[in-house]
Amino acid sequence: MIGGGEAALIQRYFHGLTAQRDGVELGVGDDAALLQTETGLLAACCDTLVEDIHFPGDIPPEALGHRVLAVNLSDLAAVGARPAWTLLSLTLPEKDPQWLERFSAGFKALADRYGVALVGGDTTQGPLSVSVTALGQVAGDHGLRRGGARPGDGVWVTGTLGDAALGLELWQEREEATALAGDPAYLAGRLFRPEPRVAAGTALLGRASAAIDVSDGLAADLSRVLDESGVGATLELEALPRSQAFIDEQGDLRHLLHGGDDYELCFTLPAEREEEMACLREHAATPVTRIGTVEETPGLRGVDAGGVVCALEPGGYDHFAEGS
Amino acid sequence: MIGGGEAALIQRYFHGLTAQRDGVELGVGDDAALLQTETGLLAACCDTLVEDIHFPGDIPPEALGHRVLAVNLSDLAAVGARPAWTLLSLTLPEKDPQWLERFSAGFKALADRYGVALVGGDTTQGPLSVSVTALGQVAGDHGLRRGGARPGDGVWVTGTLGDAALGLELWQEREEATALAGDPAYLAGRLFRPEPRVAAGTALLGRASAAIDVSDGLAADLSRVLDESGVGATLELEALPRSQAFIDEQGDLRHLLHGGDDYELCFTLPAEREEEMACLREHAATPVTRIGTVEETPGLRGVDAGGVVCALEPGGYDHFAEGS
Repeated sequence: MIGGGEAALIQRYFHGLTAQRDGVELGVGDDAALLQTETGLLAACCDTLVEDIHFPGDIPPEALGHRVLAVNLSDLAAVGARPAWTLLSLTLPEKDPQWLERFSAGFKALADRYGVALVGGDTTQGPLSVSVTALGQVAGDHGLRRGGARPGDGVWVTGTLGDAALGLELWQEREEATALAGDPAYLAGRLFRPEPRVAAGTALLGRASAAIDVSDGLAADLSRVLDESGVGATLELEALPRSQAFIDEQGDLRHLLHGGDDYELCFTLPAEREEEMACLREHAATPVTRIGTVEETPGLRGVDAGGVVCALEPGGYDHFAEGS
Repeated sequence: MIGGGEAALIQRYFHGLTAQRDGVELGVGDDAALLQTETGLLAACCDTLVEDIHFPGDIPPEALGHRVLAVNLSDLAAVGARPAWTLLSLTLPEKDPQWLERFSAGFKALADRYGVALVGGDTTQGPLSVSVTALGQVAGDHGLRRGGARPGDGVWVTGTLGDAALGLELWQEREEATALAGDPAYLAGRLFRPEPRVAAGTALLGRASAAIDVSDGLAADLSRVLDESGVGATLELEALPRSQAFIDEQGDLRHLLHGGDDYELCFTLPAEREEEMACLREHAATPVTRIGTVEETPGLRGVDAGGVVCALEPGGYDHFAEGS
């Protein structure tokens, strides 16, 4: 349903994104994209971001453009896929060229970095929301799954946790229209411009026994892995990786365990593969930290520096959870 | 980002849609779907329907579920693809089990009919809108394109035109909450439950020189084909196919030329292939009508029964057209 005005709008703001990848037989501007695929696994995912639900109304448009693609690339990374193509559906209250210019700049910059081609889309008038479908390819016969964790495996996470949740608090507490600087700006950047762990995802293929991306909070997302694997785990709370800004701005355990939107990867790894993580740190330039151990006993537990063990509730963010 | 409540919701209402196709390595409930593809062309498209923009707020939920998938399957048909997988992103003001039950029933019935698997999705809270991505596979190396019409080709259309536009008028004019019957019910059904021309699309592969689906109106959509092909056409206005209900309810040329939402296919066909259309009528059970001729002179013209020729404006529906 790309009409004259719509097609022109897409052409104007997203030109160049369609031709940057071989194999796009037919991209934006026709009814459907035609993509030449190799024999192999295709990965597809779809996420919608709605104003005031997934992002504050005053988010910079570049950040929104980046973020909506990043959350999808993160989903692809979590199954070990290399991103290839994307479709963008934009619902906008009005046609605002400046907004679109900035939105598309953020989208483009990230897409370019990973060689992702925009191959289709749709723009409509309505309350602001952005929906992206991303398609990727997985080497080999199996992607990373949620259900493969085994007792004895280590629990690992990329990067640092809690930054985005703390960043959101600082963003909401700031004087209106004031630009953030220093630590708060770093933390808000983690919220607005999450870096999908694409290299880590593909590097974990054939190594990790299970994986998920941390979008709803470590406790919630890890619990999904444990449930699907029929196992439990104990986390070493002192080991949860914190950024310097997070420490300086006094982030706490609540942010680390229940803060969503970090888009790091949480994965489980058989003990005999632990030394391969040095390779991941080096080649994929990805910090990884061992934060706990998978156990037979179901449920998620935490142990503090003093050796005290407590049960952890999943308790992440869930739009349609009862009572929320 | 399918959380506990979301996953349960998807499981509940869309269970059975994920497993009905071979090759779904990983479907709904994980971060991304993993699909085993043959070497070949993959077709992907994406359409979002927003309340009060694309459908009236009082549309039956079953009809909305059908329609949002149908418009995407129609896009796939327009490139000659056989539909395979779909991703559904639902934004809902509230969690209404009855609404979801009915919506998913409509979606499912159509998906089942074409063996389409739902392999991913997302539900969020917000103003009602529904976004679907559909993926399909195209036999051979080329899909149907918009740019291949040549002077001398016939202009053809499947089914009948204008029904959906007339149906919308009758729906809007009815007494509130009154069920339609007879002709108006038939015409509203064409609006709410368009039948994607899947069989026709695949049958036209290698035959039609260009194709598009009629979503914004014949004049607008055909003009896109003509523009991209660098040609023009003259339509025989008397030949435009009308349903009996359309005639009885006094539909006019405005509906036939500018009414959107019919989701018929409009295509151009080299003269030497005209006799193959008998086969399409028979094997794909698709009525097809020759409605005009492609010419070198750019632009779209109509000729009436008396031989009078007039220029036709594209003038279809376009959400972001200037002044609309």
